[in-house]
Amino acid sequence: VISKNKIKELRLLHTKKGREKTGCFLVEGDKMVKELISSDFGVREIVGLTEWRENITGSDVINLFSKVNPKVLKQISTLKTPNKVIAVAQMKDNAMDNRSYKENLIIAVESLQDPGNFGTILRIANWFGIGQIVCSHDTVDVYNSKVIQASMGAIFRVNVHYTDLASFIQLLPKSVPIFGTFLNGQSIYASELTNHGVILFGNESKGISDDLAELVKCKFKIPSYPPANKDMESLNVSSAVGITIAEFRRQTQTIQNEMKA
Amino acid sequence: VISKNKIKELRLLHTKKGREKTGCFLVEGDKMVKELISSDFGVREIVGLTEWRENITGSDVINLFSKVNPKVLKQISTLKTPNKVIAVAQMKDNAMDNRSYKENLIIAVESLQDPGNFGTILRIANWFGIGQIVCSHDTVDVYNSKVIQASMGAIFRVNVHYTDLASFIQLLPKSVPIFGTFLNGQSIYASELTNHGVILFGNESKGISDDLAELVKCKFKIPSYPPANKDMESLNVSSAVGITIAEFRRQTQTIQNEMKA
Repeated sequence: VISKNKIKELRLLHTKKGREKTGCFLVEGDKMVKELISSDFGVREIVGLTEWRENITGSDVINLFSKVNPKVLKQISTLKTPNKVIAVAQMKDNAMDNRSYKENLIIAVESLQDPGNFGTILRIANWFGIGQIVCSHDTVDVYNSKVIQASMGAIFRVNVHYTDLASFIQLLPKSVPIFGTFLNGQSIYASELTNHGVILFGNESKGISDDLAELVKCKFKIPSYPPANKDMESLNVSSAVGITIAEFRRQTQTIQNEMKA
Repeated sequence: VISKNKIKELRLLHTKKGREKTGCFLVEGDKMVKELISSDFGVREIVGLTEWRENITGSDVINLFSKVNPKVLKQISTLKTPNKVIAVAQMKDNAMDNRSYKENLIIAVESLQDPGNFGTILRIANWFGIGQIVCSHDTVDVYNSKVIQASMGAIFRVNVHYTDLASFIQLLPKSVPIFGTFLNGQSIYASELTNHGVILFGNESKGISDDLAELVKCKFKIPSYPPANKDMESLNVSSAVGITIAEFRRQTQTIQNEMKA
């Protein structure tokens, strides 16, 4: 049984302010909590229904567990229909790995607003073996519960780092390729893609800002079909990220295979 | 000024039942209402703030307009923060164009549940020149306000048809290629893609059902990276749709270009 004060304390983690003050965030649902437990994130406590507890073995976890009834679970939850269990996880200090731009691709996002988009981008990064996402300070908080839900656990496997993107790019060696999506770029299929470097994506409605656009060396676009098709709006940014990263991996793998042959 | 009964009537369109009974659906926000007006969908009425009305020219539209205050707009709206104007649009009877599978790709979706995913898929279809989406009966309603918002207007440019997918596929000529995404399919990059036929995508968590899987002639997957990467969950279905359709267009365009050369 947990106190009213404890419920209040947990509810503070619904807001970015509360998360920043405590360094903690909520993880909801059986699948996500199990992913959290097997990740390298710290777990502070777990509240859940008795039926969840009964399915869990491993004393470490059980020491952190407090039983609550469905009514209390709903009070703590950010979801309309809470799912048996909620854990309090500790944020990680995601220092940039400064070699990663030499050895792998990095996704950079500017002013991304929609939590669902961010979660989807985390899944894409995870699927395509990208371990690092760099965000502008005004990008939606990665510990927002909607981002975590949409990431389906990818949040535990991809490092996310908030920084000033212009300084970040300017401090990289000049040899690092900087890519970005622009409606007037050249076709991604005619662009020379690499297996390392930074790929920049912009805000949902405004795209990449002029200040950052100046720093992009390879501007590409995803061609619509037919290419002269004017009867379309645009792709969602998470669709653009998926198509782009898949094409980077396809091109560089094909080249590797050709070199082997 | 509009009556309480009218407000109640408009609020009925928040539910699928209310929409089906009246054959109407709500379209919210300046951008989307303007897209509706210039589309071939019928418009029944428009309610909005005076400031919206002042920006509109064209008497047809103004005849349909009723002024409301922000409080009433909020009562009618499905959004937390309504955006100046809401229109009542008429559903279209989207009969299948039975030649489209010969001349173009068709996207088929089975039991898709998330409205945001459906809206994103409509945008992808629109971007890549696909005019037809066929859905199983249990797919989320295309006139759900969240689908409409996420589609960013693509809903006015792509036909959506609900049907029994198994019968739909079985009634097609045997020569029509039927593609589908499967975790154990062959790599999409090693598959022979065509510029026509049906591409099937499954439910967010369950994928394609066994019954429909039997009808798929070409089973492909989007390879993860590195290919042996086990440390990943899966792609969101809308990410899979984007990457897949982009690759269909890339392959068939490349072949066309090579034939020209």
